[in-house]
Amino acid sequence: MAASSLSAASPWATRRRLRNGHALKRDAVILAAARAFRERGYHKTSLDDLAASLQVTKPTLYLYVPSKEAILFECFRAGLAQIQSTLKDCESAPGAARERLFAFIRGYAAAIVGDFGWCMLRAEDQHLGAVMSRRIKLLKSGIDRRMRALIQAGVTDGSIRACDTKMTAFALAGALNWMGHWYREDASLKPAEIADRFIDVFNRGLRGRD
Amino acid sequence: MAASSLSAASPWATRRRLRNGHALKRDAVILAAARAFRERGYHKTSLDDLAASLQVTKPTLYLYVPSKEAILFECFRAGLAQIQSTLKDCESAPGAARERLFAFIRGYAAAIVGDFGWCMLRAEDQHLGAVMSRRIKLLKSGIDRRMRALIQAGVTDGSIRACDTKMTAFALAGALNWMGHWYREDASLKPAEIADRFIDVFNRGLRGRD
Repeated sequence: MAASSLSAASPWATRRRLRNGHALKRDAVILAAARAFRERGYHKTSLDDLAASLQVTKPTLYLYVPSKEAILFECFRAGLAQIQSTLKDCESAPGAARERLFAFIRGYAAAIVGDFGWCMLRAEDQHLGAVMSRRIKLLKSGIDRRMRALIQAGVTDGSIRACDTKMTAFALAGALNWMGHWYREDASLKPAEIADRFIDVFNRGLRGRD
Repeated sequence: MAASSLSAASPWATRRRLRNGHALKRDAVILAAARAFRERGYHKTSLDDLAASLQVTKPTLYLYVPSKEAILFECFRAGLAQIQSTLKDCESAPGAARERLFAFIRGYAAAIVGDFGWCMLRAEDQHLGAVMSRRIKLLKSGIDRRMRALIQAGVTDGSIRACDTKMTAFALAGALNWMGHWYREDASLKPAEIADRFIDVFNRGLRGRD
């Protein structure tokens, strides 16, 4: 019965199932690596440690990823993909750009404290080769460009006052990225609460009485 | 003549001169190290490189500093001393706390892009021993505490509106510290101009029309 249903199935479907299985396992390797890098640091995590934590052999790891450097890059990319996805939603949502910028801040804060946050913030400092460093810089500057465009859209639709969009994007990204240094899951506000406090500061400013 | 003036001088004065000479040379070692760490990274800079750049031998270096880790700590402390000094000025200056906070932002921006800025931002990530990591964390949290107190002073004197002082301090420190990642001496605004743009954002907020 099982054999006949198997033989009746399309070989492409089977191949797709295998491919999906491979992708799932690869994702598991990348997630386990992200957690290990955050806990122990990139240099102190060996592929042997990683294989042991996944209960596989090192040669098995190599079926999914070619090198530790490539794993770090994939961790970085996975974190960035979260940010890119929330950015895409915010770019295409209806409403004033200021509100869409603030929605983006919420998504960004969640990504920074997520499993790949550490890798996103530290990957560039981990002595990567020139090629990978360049790719990371390119991906980061893509995010920066789109953040500035979202701020500029706010200036254009009037929901954000005229400001230096570049410096504003750097101030926002800095405030958010810095979370990676002080955030503690057990001892800090929840990411959404932190985002709300930041939004309050960036929205209304600090000025009291003159 | 020289000998007689020397013999007439107080031996303590001579000792002080020697001590000053030692301190000057030690400062030169620390400054050269800070520049090398920023250019090449901490792990890629050896004490041999450092000795060569100062045209001395490695044993000579050890007259001034006991280890590479100790040098990094001194670089960190030198950068922090700049921030502490400007913070002290701002704490004791007359006037509204908001203006004093903004003066501190200017001093902080200058320190971050200075020779010791890289070490201040990266020292903690450089696999330091537990003792040194703890000392660095303590010094950093001292700055954080005083920043919050300055913000609170503004809330008290009415120059800063009621806000979450902790999250505001983190947002400000994040924006400023992030400069260490994007600032390029040849391609960015001057530190004072960057500080002014940040102050504008944090003072007035981004809100345009509602």
